Formats: sequence, structure tokens, C-alpha cells
Amino acid sequence: MKTFKAGLVGITGYAGMELARLLVSHPSMRLSMACSRAEAGKRLGEYYPFLEHMPGSDVVISVFDAEQAAKECDVVFLAVPAGTAMDMAAPLLKAGTKVVDLSADFRLRDPEIYTEWYRHEHTHKDILPRAVYGLPELYAAEVSRASLIANPGCYPTSVILGLYAAIKNGLVETDDIVVDAKSGATGAGRKAALGTLFCEVSDNFRAYGLPTHRHTPEIEQEVSLLAGHEVRLSFNTHILPLNRGILSTIYTKLKNPATTLDQVREAFMATWAHSPWIRVLPKGSLPETRYVRGSMFCDLGLVVDPRTGRLTILSAIDNLCRGASGQALANANLMCGLPVGTGLDMLAPLP
Amino acid sequence: MKTFKAGLVGITGYAGMELARLLVSHPSMRLSMACSRAEAGKRLGEYYPFLEHMPGSDVVISVFDAEQAAKECDVVFLAVPAGTAMDMAAPLLKAGTKVVDLSADFRLRDPEIYTEWYRHEHTHKDILPRAVYGLPELYAAEVSRASLIANPGCYPTSVILGLYAAIKNGLVETDDIVVDAKSGATGAGRKAALGTLFCEVSDNFRAYGLPTHRHTPEIEQEVSLLAGHEVRLSFNTHILPLNRGILSTIYTKLKNPATTLDQVREAFMATWAHSPWIRVLPKGSLPETRYVRGSMFCDLGLVVDPRTGRLTILSAIDNLCRGASGQALANANLMCGLPVGTGLDMLAPLP
Amino acid sequence: MKTFKAGLVGITGYAGMELARLLVSHPSMRLSMACSRAEAGKRLGEYYPFLEHMPGSDVVISVFDAEQAAKECDVVFLAVPAGTAMDMAAPLLKAGTKVVDLSADFRLRDPEIYTEWYRHEHTHKDILPRAVYGLPELYAAEVSRASLIANPGCYPTSVILGLYAAIKNGLVETDDIVVDAKSGATGAGRKAALGTLFCEVSDNFRAYGLPTHRHTPEIEQEVSLLAGHEVRLSFNTHILPLNRGILSTIYTKLKNPATTLDQVREAFMATWAHSPWIRVLPKGSLPETRYVRGSMFCDLGLVVDPRTGRLTILSAIDNLCRGASGQALANANLMCGLPVGTGLDMLAPLP
Amino acid sequence: MKTFKAGLVGITGYAGMELARLLVSHPSMRLSMACSRAEAGKRLGEYYPFLEHMPGSDVVISVFDAEQAAKECDVVFLAVPAGTAMDMAAPLLKAGTKVVDLSADFRLRDPEIYTEWYRHEHTHKDILPRAVYGLPELYAAEVSRASLIANPGCYPTSVILGLYAAIKNGLVETDDIVVDAKSGATGAGRKAALGTLFCEVSDNFRAYGLPTHRHTPEIEQEVSLLAGHEVRLSFNTHILPLNRGILSTIYTKLKNPATTLDQVREAFMATWAHSPWIRVLPKGSLPETRYVRGSMFCDLGLVVDPRTGRLTILSAIDNLCRGASGQALANANLMCGLPVGTGLDMLAPLP
Repeated sequence: MKTFKAGLVGITGYAGMELARLLVSHPSMRLSMACSRAEAGKRLGEYYPFLEHMPGSDVVISVFDAEQAAKECDVVFLAVPAGTAMDMAAPLLKAGTKVVDLSADFRLRDPEIYTEWYRHEHTHKDILPRAVYGLPELYAAEVSRASLIANPGCYPTSVILGLYAAIKNGLVETDDIVVDAKSGATGAGRKAALGTLFCEVSDNFRAYGLPTHRHTPEIEQEVSLLAGHEVRLSFNTHILPLNRGILSTIYTKLKNPATTLDQVREAFMATWAHSPWIRVLPKGSLPETRYVRGSMFCDLGLVVDPRTGRLTILSAIDNLCRGASGQALANANLMCGLPVGTGLDMLAPLP
Repeated sequence: MKTFKAGLVGITGYAGMELARLLVSHPSMRLSMACSRAEAGKRLGEYYPFLEHMPGSDVVISVFDAEQAAKECDVVFLAVPAGTAMDMAAPLLKAGTKVVDLSADFRLRDPEIYTEWYRHEHTHKDILPRAVYGLPELYAAEVSRASLIANPGCYPTSVILGLYAAIKNGLVETDDIVVDAKSGATGAGRKAALGTLFCEVSDNFRAYGLPTHRHTPEIEQEVSLLAGHEVRLSFNTHILPLNRGILSTIYTKLKNPATTLDQVREAFMATWAHSPWIRVLPKGSLPETRYVRGSMFCDLGLVVDPRTGRLTILSAIDNLCRGASGQALANANLMCGLPVGTGLDMLAPLP
Repeated sequence: MKTFKAGLVGITGYAGMELARLLVSHPSMRLSMACSRAEAGKRLGEYYPFLEHMPGSDVVISVFDAEQAAKECDVVFLAVPAGTAMDMAAPLLKAGTKVVDLSADFRLRDPEIYTEWYRHEHTHKDILPRAVYGLPELYAAEVSRASLIANPGCYPTSVILGLYAAIKNGLVETDDIVVDAKSGATGAGRKAALGTLFCEVSDNFRAYGLPTHRHTPEIEQEVSLLAGHEVRLSFNTHILPLNRGILSTIYTKLKNPATTLDQVREAFMATWAHSPWIRVLPKGSLPETRYVRGSMFCDLGLVVDPRTGRLTILSAIDNLCRGASGQALANANLMCGLPVGTGLDMLAPLP
Repeated sequence: MKTFKAGLVGITGYAGMELARLLVSHPSMRLSMACSRAEAGKRLGEYYPFLEHMPGSDVVISVFDAEQAAKECDVVFLAVPAGTAMDMAAPLLKAGTKVVDLSADFRLRDPEIYTEWYRHEHTHKDILPRAVYGLPELYAAEVSRASLIANPGCYPTSVILGLYAAIKNGLVETDDIVVDAKSGATGAGRKAALGTLFCEVSDNFRAYGLPTHRHTPEIEQEVSLLAGHEVRLSFNTHILPLNRGILSTIYTKLKNPATTLDQVREAFMATWAHSPWIRVLPKGSLPETRYVRGSMFCDLGLVVDPRTGRLTILSAIDNLCRGASGQALANANLMCGLPVGTGLDMLAPLP
């Protein structure tokens, strides 16, 4: 089997750390380049002791250079902040290198909405139309043909996968959706900051970013596409005292209040019958973040409350793996003609 | 100042543990009786080493006996399971002893609703009308005159205090309220059980009890009273990997979508101006469970989202102190003619 | 490549849970039998939702029957309590089935010492001499030829691997060793018990089992073998508020107080040069439990304190994987003629 | 009762945060000045929302000015880094203001040892002899007469209190002491730093600072004083994934290996009979960090291992309260002529 050379820009963040873990174990990709301005010159295994004694651990960290990257890599992962990624993607695409961008730079179709929420101009509107929104269950065919992937945000992954079957099957109203999402602390990134110190996050729970989390327009864009009309919803985020995991509790109103849980479950199971990473849980079971930890699974739990006519959808993913780096690798697999799940069969190391 | 003799039945649970902590430090109450069938015969300080070297730590744990209790105590706290408490309360009341019941046995006005949700008959319907729902901010006068207190549930405390000003001031619709509540693991009690082992709760987040948590009818009863008409709402619970704290995120629709955050804040601040335990947070601040840990405070954060016409109310309490034992003691203070806050001026030991 | 049929007795404990995870992903073993008296009749994926959608998740849990097990399995893992395992092992061995026993039943050479520390008779002294102590780095050849493996305890694995190079190279005194070991809470097992509830373990740290932890004779037996004379040491255990991981801090006195850190490191690196799972950390680096989480690695850190003439060895492993189930699988690999690391190349999912 | 005016310099660190909590609740002290360069101008309750609605929460944070401080305060607490405190203390002392220094600046009698371990010159050697080492159980009389307190370090507090009775009663050898200490993450301070982010500390355990933690000379100085001769010991530190608490496991050799646990316990209990904050635990009980959380208690557990002739002493304190701010306040109480425990009767809020 052919081996593809993979480059990873931005290794010091949590998404980069997770991608490094996945790439050094991948059977058909080889980590051939790892970039970080701050850590350039170190061996990867020196910077990340948990990778020591693995093949890729001898790669020497370098400063990103587009020309060099295009030469050395078949595919480049950009795990850098929004606003930085687009300027790296452009020359790589020009040189014919495949790009998976984990930032938000190519997720929003409309560059004005991008500017409104991310507070700077989009400097590469020309390549924006080439970007494919990389949710493999929904867009595998498009991803396979793409050269540029806008890798979905972590929250949007959980919410879109949660709502998909409900909307596609016309089960719920789309004008009264409330999402109460909770994320592990890796979602806040790996910058030294007072607010994410251990002693500030542990033994604590709080909401943040209300009511204007940047993932709102991304979710609304994709849910509107599914619904066939513009959807506006309420999206609310909280930070959990744990490292990995997102649980989104999604409150919807049933179009027909008489719809039963069995009917909803049948629709969900039919929709996801051929998607092994989506697990519609049995009646009475609710998802737990630990069951998807470190994996590509998205566990869905369904609750119908006849008292209030609501369908509550619970969607759990690992924000780093399914919500970022694992999904990025799944997209790269597809772009390289590999089975989508290559190197991604990890199970949650419970407990 | 007179010293009141307090009895505590059910010391082995977390509510009992918290009450023991508060009572041994109380300036005007003396823990004169501590009951537990399983631990009878031990000194309190032997069973709870963290109380050792405190005055009350020499009380010997005994098996509850109503007659004895009535003799030895001015007020008795019942920190025992629902269904057990009512049979203990009846003889105590008869003997003229004040009772604060921390269970659900006297919270629901309608004994049929009690039976529907708690799955057993109410065996003391005769004394049910004497019970006062012990939310001091709302019912201090009634509590002062009462001999039997139905101490509110933890979730209901957070939700009712959260919604109170919004409903009293007519700010929100009452037919479309969604409560997404998250609680620390002490809420699950102190019984040995697989599901609450450290390794099952830590590094995990999940919902539970959907859509039929037993606190639902209690919340609806009290919110309906506030609203002046029957309110049905969606109440949903999650378990956090931390010991103490509840954060309820309460989603409401503004009656007038043009209402501003400033207007909402003014209404809340006016409503709570004379309630030192209710802290309406400044604009932009959101409550955190750690800020109320171990204390009587209820911190309220307010978010208006003009995009969706919603007012989101965040309400944080300590589920053990404000949501159970501290509130029970506040009620007992009132019943004894003491200032409501006597012995309850603890601050969160941050971090 | 041949596929071996593996049976797993005792799936409900944490060691069984971990083995289930490893076996359903193993390229050359197939989980063909999973036993638990309490959960018999359920599908594995029903009992462990995190395994759902994996090949082995359709195995139906059964009650252990030695005859049946011998028919259906090439190798059987016993993840059951000490005292129970030996009675299961005997008939399996008789029927020619390979056995890896994760309990302590075959670890101690001397059945009287077993009785002294485990408080019951050894009922199968006849097969005790056939048992090989399954530390692959030390006894791979013996393991390959064995039919019965005494899988090492978690603490002993960390301590023996930590001390091995120091003793083999004659660097330290053997009569003044103090081990201060700390373990994650999975080490306490998965029985419902008050002491291991989340709220009793979280936000807490304590020692336990002092001075008579049952792993003491196992460590002393193996260290004595290495030293060539009887060694008595001080072994002390603590419980950490985290799920997985052991860090043993091992205090020794240098035979020659002038020995330098460089000399010690050279000796360790030479000793472990061909053991990819043993990582001797660079100068100045100390092991962290997270770096070995869910993996087979044993990370060793070395500190020489010229002020006191001590060599302190820090040894970190994952107690469930390297300290139990992963090591059991490595032994089974060797017994089946497979490379020791087959199916065991997991990396710590950081953070 | 007279009210003393207290100033607090360095409110943003964890020691400052804890002192703020204690001072706003103190019956005989009033927080009259709170200093922080970074947060000057804010109200204390604005910066620390958990203090809102408390009397002292209206103090406006200011930049430290010695002259002003001397005017406004009877006693000033310096919760600032080592090296900074001494320059603040000098003018305050000159102006006759009492000073409690929580840094290390006045703890070491010998300024050359200070320079060796803290890497800068001692700029106020003249006032060094006036400093009293503020361990109330050992030096209450001296503290009462002092104008400058060197408040002990957190680790030294736990180790000295742990060893005191063993050394004073001549029970153990002093040339073979090993201390294995574990601390909560507040010990690492409140600076934004990668290494103390939640995701780097949680679900992890590691040693650090081996073999040269700065508290070593402080412990050796004080233990040598107790022993009457120079003592050199091995002091080793680890970081726990929890906020508060130190557990020091202290390994000693009994002078007489035949000494029984009962004899040791008797000696300890006699020594500490009149020290209510020191709790010698009953036989078979071991200290837990949670039992002392947020309090002034030091819990001591004793283990005699006849197999190895060792006495193991376990000493648990809250590193922030007993190990820093609470102890500082106890010293200030004594300096002001108040009972040592004024305002310090907090119990651990369990769990």
C-alpha cells in the first residue's frame, strides 16, 4: 500500500498533539514534517515524551515554509489559529498539495459573516469556494474529490450530527431549537492563561461565551442547508472540569407532538444504518462523554417528553478526536483514496 | 443568647454530613442528638474525623427514637430518604418539637402527585397542610410561624430563585421554559453504588433521569404559584465530575423581544435588593459553581440574546449547603426566632 | 496469520474491561468467550456501550464453564479475585488450554507466604511450579514455553522494572529501600463500596494499607531473585484522585556515594537498550502518569542527590494496561508465538 | 473588642485570595487595604466575585505604598514573591507596623543559604534577626512579642509538625529521614503558565523539583534546631491533581526497633495534648487531605513497621490555609494580643 507523506503545522496545541498521536500510528501515512515556530529544532519525541520510541518521534520540528512543505508532503494539516491558516493554505494549494484546515478559515461560505464573527478580513476569498466542509458522514464524496477541507468545529460536529436525522426526516420544528453544549477544557486551547489554570477550572462549572459563541454561524449555516431554509437557533456553551469530550443537549419541539420515541428511534437508525461511527443508543440509554473518549464515535441518545411535546437529542463526541484531529485525518484518508477509517479504530480507554 | 438543642437524623448521607459541619459551629444551636441506625454507638468525631476536636464531636450516635428526640431537642432535622421522613415527623410534631424535613415528603401540596412521582402512598396527609415550603427569601414570615418545614430540593432551589424575578416582573413567557441543570455528584447520595464510583463519574459527563426527574413537579408547583397559573416546563438534569454545586441554565422567551439586558438587570436587582444571599452578577459576568461552594449564596447571571428573543438565566448554588443543609438551618433559625443567617456566613474556600 | 480464540473470565472488573477493549481490537486474537455470573445473557456491546459497533461486541456473556472454555478457547484470561482463579485454572490446564491468571494466585512461589498474606489455603499447590511470572522484559523465553502465567501485580510491575537495572548493575544497597507508591483509583476495583465513591476519592489524597499491602511479598520475592539474596523493603501505597496510573518513587542508597547521574543513566540505558517499552527519560525529565496512560510503556526517571548519597528512581506505568491487562495480553502473545507487542501499540491519548 | 486594621499586599495569588477570604470574615480585623499593581482601581468584590456582598468587598485595590500602608494598617501581610517582600517589610517595620511575610525572605537564619537557594542577595540582613519563625504551636510566645514574622512554607509546616514529637521524644534516628511530599496544585501559584493549565495537571501525577526543592534548607534548619544538631534529610515533592492539601509521608528509622505503635502514639499525644489544631489520629486511621481542607488542622497518622524497624509519619495540612494564609493570620492574632484561633475555626466543607 502506498504511504502518504503528511505535514502537521501547529504541533503545540491540543489539536496538533492529537494529530501527532494519530499520525505516528497511521499505517499508510508517515509524519514527514512537524512545524512550530516556538519549538523548532527539537525532536518531536523530545517535545512530546509520550511519543518517544515511536517511528515518527525522530522528526525534527521546523518552522513552516510553504515551498518546502509542498515538496515534502502529500497532505498538510493546518492546526493553527483562525486568520493564520488561510495564508498558509493558499500557496500549498497552488503547489498542488492537499490541505486540511482545522481552523475556521474556510468553514463559512460567506466571507462577510466570517469577518463579522472572527473580526478580521478574509484574505483568500478566491479559494473559499474550493473548500469542502469535512463531515465525512454527510460529504464523503465531495471530500474525496477535494483539495481543501474546512474541517468542522468541535461543537458544530456534535450539533449537526445530532440534528441531522431529526431534520432530514422532518420530525422537528426548526424555529425553536436550543442547544445547551458542554465541553472539556481542551476546547479552550493550550495557551498559558489564568482562566484555564488547573485551579481555576477544576472543581468548577460555568457557562462562557453567551450568547455569541463563534461556532453559532457555522452551525446555523449547515443546519440551514439541511433544512432547506434559514435556521436561527440558540447555542450556548459551558466548560467542564475534564479534558476531553462534548455533550450537546439539543432541545427541539416535535412537529407532531404525538410522535413516539420508537418512531424517532427508527428514523434515526435508518438514517445512520451505514455509518459505523454513529451509534444510536438503545432506548433508555443516554450518551456519556467517556464512551467516546479518544475515538471517532458520535453517540446519540433520544428522549421524547410527551408532557411538553419535545424531542431532546443528546450528542456526545470527543472534541479533540472526532471534533478536530481524528476527523481531519478521516478527511485526509478520503482525499488520499484510503478507507475513511484507516488508522482511526481507537476505542475509549475506559475508565 | 438562648441556645437551642438540635437533633439530626440521618448523619451518614451528604446532607447529614453537611448539617453536622454547620451545627457544630453554630453559635446558638447545640447538636444534642445525632442518629443513624448503621453507626449507632460511635462518637460523632470517630465517624467523621474532620469534626474531631470540635465541641459536638463527643455526641454518641444513637438510633432514632421519637419520644427521646422530642425530649432532647428543640428542633429536629430529618436528613433521611423520602418515605421515611413523614413517619418520623408526625410524632415529633405531636410532641411539639419543630421539624425541618430535608426529604421530599412534605414538598408537594397534592398527595396524589406525591404518589405519582415518588411511588408510594403519603401516610400523613393530615399534617401536610401544616408544612411550609422553606425558601427563606420567599416565605420567611411563614417559616417563622411554622412547626414543620418542607425543605426545598436542590434543583428546585436553583430554578425557583433563578426564575422568580423574571416571572414576578412579567418579563418572560411561562409556556416555553427549558431548564438544563447540572449537578455535582453529592446530589446522587452516599450509598455504595457502581454508578457513583469515582472511576465511573470522574472524567465523564452525562445526562440522567430524562425526562422524568422527581424534582419536576416540585418546580412546577412553585413556579405555577409564582405565575398565578399552571406552568409546565422542561426540566433536564446532568451529573458533573465534581462534588458540590448546581448550575441551572434556564432558557426563556422574552414577552417583549425588545427588552434589553439593562431592563432585565434592573428588575432583578430591584427584586433582590434586600436579599444578601442573592447576588445578581454584573453585566458580562456569569455565575460559577466555585463562587458559591459551601455557602448560602445564589449567584444569578443574565443573558439577553436579541437574535432569538431569549432571556437566559444562569443560577448557581451549592447543592448541599444552599440546596439542602444550609437552607434547612436557615429555616430552623427563623423558627427559633434567630436571624436567618446565624451560623451561615461561610464563604467559598477558593479555589 | 492464524487467529487465536481468547476467553475472558471476569469482564465486569476494570481489568476485564481493559482486556475486552484490547481483545476486540487485536489483529490475531478473537474474543470468543466472555464470562460473568452477574451479567450472563447480555451482549457484550450492551453491557459495555463503548465497545458497540466493534466485531466482538456481539459475544453473549456466559457463566464460566471449564469444559466449554477449554473447547472454545486457545487461551483463557482469568480476571477474577485471588482465591477464585486457581480453581478455574486447574481444569483448563488439564485440558491443555493456556491460562493467563491476572490474580495473585500463582505469583508467590511459597504457598505458605500466599496463605499468610491472602488469608486462605492454596488449593492447587501441584500446578504452582508450572506458573511463570509474566514480566516480558525479564522472562520472555520462559513465558513463551509456559502454559500458565502468573501475571504480575500492578505495583510490583512498576517497582521491579524500576529497580531492575539498579540492582543488576550493583549500584545500590538492597537493605535500605523505601518505595512510596501512588496509584489511580481503578486499582481499588469496581465493587460498589462507600470508600471508592466519587465524592470520597475526588479532591482527596491519602495513604492506605500501611504497612502491610499484599503486594509486598511479591515485590520482595522478585527483587530477592534479582539481588541473589533475601531483600526486605518498605512498601507504601497511596490512592490518587485519577483513574489510571501508578507512580512509584523508589528511594535507594548508592553503594558508592560518588556515583554520578551520568553513570547511573548509562547503566540503565544499556540494560534497557532492547526493550522498547522501557523509556529511560533524558536528564532532568521525570515521568508523568499521563505519558503512559492506556499504554504498555514504563517510563523511568533518575535522580542522584549527592547531599544524601541517594539514588531516587521514579517509575510510571498504567496500572490497568501495563500493570494488568496489557501485560496479560503480551504474555498471551508470547505463549501463542506472536510478537510480544501484537495489538499493544496504543499511545497515551493526551491530554 | 478592639478592631485591628489589616493590609494585604499581593491579593491576586492563591495565598492572597485565601487571606482575603479569611480577613473579610474576621471578627476583630478589618481589611483596610488590598494591594495589587495589576488590579489597582477595581473593587475587591469586583475582582473576587465570591467575596461580593461581604463588608470588605468594597475596598478599592491599590498599588502598595509603604508610607500609606503604615498609616492605614496595624498589621500588613505580604503575599508577594520571595525577593520582593523584604524591600516592602523594611520601611513598614521602621514605621512601627507589624509585618507578616508569607514569602521565604526571612525564614532562613543564614543569608548565604538564602542566596544559595533563592539565587539573589538578601538586601535586608539587618532586620533578619528580628524575624520570628511563625509556627504557633512551637513559637507562640516569641510570635506574640514579634514585629516581623517569617511565615513558614507549606511543606515545612507539614514536615516540622510531623517530625516534632518524634524528635523531641528521641524516638527516631535523624540521619536517615526521607520525606515524600505531595501537594495540591495551588502550591504552584497563580501565574499563567503552560505547566499548570488544567489539561496538563488533571488526570496526571508527577514529581517535580527533585532533588533541590527550595523548602529543603528551611526544613533542615528547623529540624536541626529541634534535634540539637545538624540534620540533613531527603525531601521530595510531587504535584497532585487537586487544588488544596499536602500529605507528607515521612519515613524514619526507630532508634529502638522494638518500639511499639502504642508507645509512639502515647508520646505524640502527650506532646500535642494542648494543641487543638494537631489531631493525632486513632490507631488504624490515616490522614486524608480532605479532612483538613480549608482549615487550620494538621492531622497526624502513625505507622510502625516491625518488619523494617521504621516509623512512618503521615502529616496532612491544607497548604493554603494552615500552610500559608491561615497560619499568617494566627500569627497576626498573636501579635495583636488576640487568641491565636480568632476567625480561624473553619471546618473542612466535606466532601
